[in-house]
Amino acid sequence: MKKREAIMEEIRSASFTTPTSGVADGYAQANLVVLDKKYAFDFLVYCERNKKACPILDVTDVGSPKPVLTGQQNDLRTDLPKYQVYEAGKLLKSVNDVTGYWTEDSVAFLLGCSFTFEEALRQNGIPIRHNEEKCNVPMFETNIDTIPAGPFSGPMVVSMRPMSQQDAVRAVQVTSRFPDVHGAPVHIGDPKAIGIDDITTPDYGDAVTIKEGEVPVFWACGVTPQAAAKANGLSMITHAPGHMYITNVKNETLGVL
Amino acid sequence: MKKREAIMEEIRSASFTTPTSGVADGYAQANLVVLDKKYAFDFLVYCERNKKACPILDVTDVGSPKPVLTGQQNDLRTDLPKYQVYEAGKLLKSVNDVTGYWTEDSVAFLLGCSFTFEEALRQNGIPIRHNEEKCNVPMFETNIDTIPAGPFSGPMVVSMRPMSQQDAVRAVQVTSRFPDVHGAPVHIGDPKAIGIDDITTPDYGDAVTIKEGEVPVFWACGVTPQAAAKANGLSMITHAPGHMYITNVKNETLGVL
Repeated sequence: MKKREAIMEEIRSASFTTPTSGVADGYAQANLVVLDKKYAFDFLVYCERNKKACPILDVTDVGSPKPVLTGQQNDLRTDLPKYQVYEAGKLLKSVNDVTGYWTEDSVAFLLGCSFTFEEALRQNGIPIRHNEEKCNVPMFETNIDTIPAGPFSGPMVVSMRPMSQQDAVRAVQVTSRFPDVHGAPVHIGDPKAIGIDDITTPDYGDAVTIKEGEVPVFWACGVTPQAAAKANGLSMITHAPGHMYITNVKNETLGVL
Repeated sequence: MKKREAIMEEIRSASFTTPTSGVADGYAQANLVVLDKKYAFDFLVYCERNKKACPILDVTDVGSPKPVLTGQQNDLRTDLPKYQVYEAGKLLKSVNDVTGYWTEDSVAFLLGCSFTFEEALRQNGIPIRHNEEKCNVPMFETNIDTIPAGPFSGPMVVSMRPMSQQDAVRAVQVTSRFPDVHGAPVHIGDPKAIGIDDITTPDYGDAVTIKEGEVPVFWACGVTPQAAAKANGLSMITHAPGHMYITNVKNETLGVL
């Protein structure tokens, strides 16, 4: 297992450009949303109203790309493996560096990511299928509406991890300890109950195998703001789903007990 | 025990003007901060950087005195038993109604209050001294600095509950379940270790008896923004310490597991 510093250097130089699940174990990971300051207050209220999907870990000072609480030596314009640039709700491009899109009015928000509690799941003997299959976690837009704030609204996005039915209860317990990285699942079982018609075609990330006897378990996901951008024609810079910012915060320090 | 609706009616008509600890058991309580919208974003960032003291439960739409998530039928200008009006960092007055101070640019923030987990402490056999002595909880400014955001900075304020040393461990467990209402204590034991020179003269609220063999247990407190107002010459409307907004949210729904 490479140390965080080594991974961050590879990410910064764009030699590491793949999903970050299972990478730099021990350090919490975060979703990124960068907005013009005129949307910053409304977005923060949106996050507060939808904490399960958008738990705030850090907010930069206006114009500064430096995390305040989660890695002051890092630069959020270069230190993620892949970004998405949304313009008026359309995905304009995916890039490995957003220095050219950053302005003095940019504010960056870091939201907790469920990759953070995967270490705890593995330590409890619950395998992570997208690690086993060396792909990105599957993510879906649901029929669960977020609570609007200003121009932000839209469906909650969820990530899905299949597991044995016996493991599902333990997964609830293990992840409940980590509310700042989405906490307990929002749903266990029938995907249709939350508006997912086809579990084999995720809206973001990759499909994974669900074995005989396994149940899909769904967690709220920090890609939810990207769905809000698409639903409302908004402009923002985000991480590419699954390609997270690796904070300097140890996973365990986010455990509430 | 009176029902929440009956208590709220008494509060609205200013026939109930005393501290709310132990009142309307079962419902979460909240600190209030009302600011001009020009400070709203900085304040929300301040809360995020200092979650332990300032866990956000609700943010109103600009100009609206209605809670969005915690009691849409309520009016935050009248539905707290007592308010403080700070002008340029000075406590201008304490009033029972702030309708005259509210403007179309006002934004209200509700922060979780530790009175919320007192029910769980009592159910675990841990007596609440300020209830026994029918007074307000003692609160102190500490030497723990908050992390600044915009014009907001200053000391963390804490509330104190004395208890037997055997109860202190259980109190950590019980309150850890409720991170949105300050969660686990920030300190157990020697008040001087957090800059409190005289435990018998609280900065807010009332002194309570600490019996032989008891240990003081300190929780981060939502009066922290009032200390920030005083430290930085800011104007804001707040609840009077101990005189909280009683939300329509059941305590137990805030338990993370």
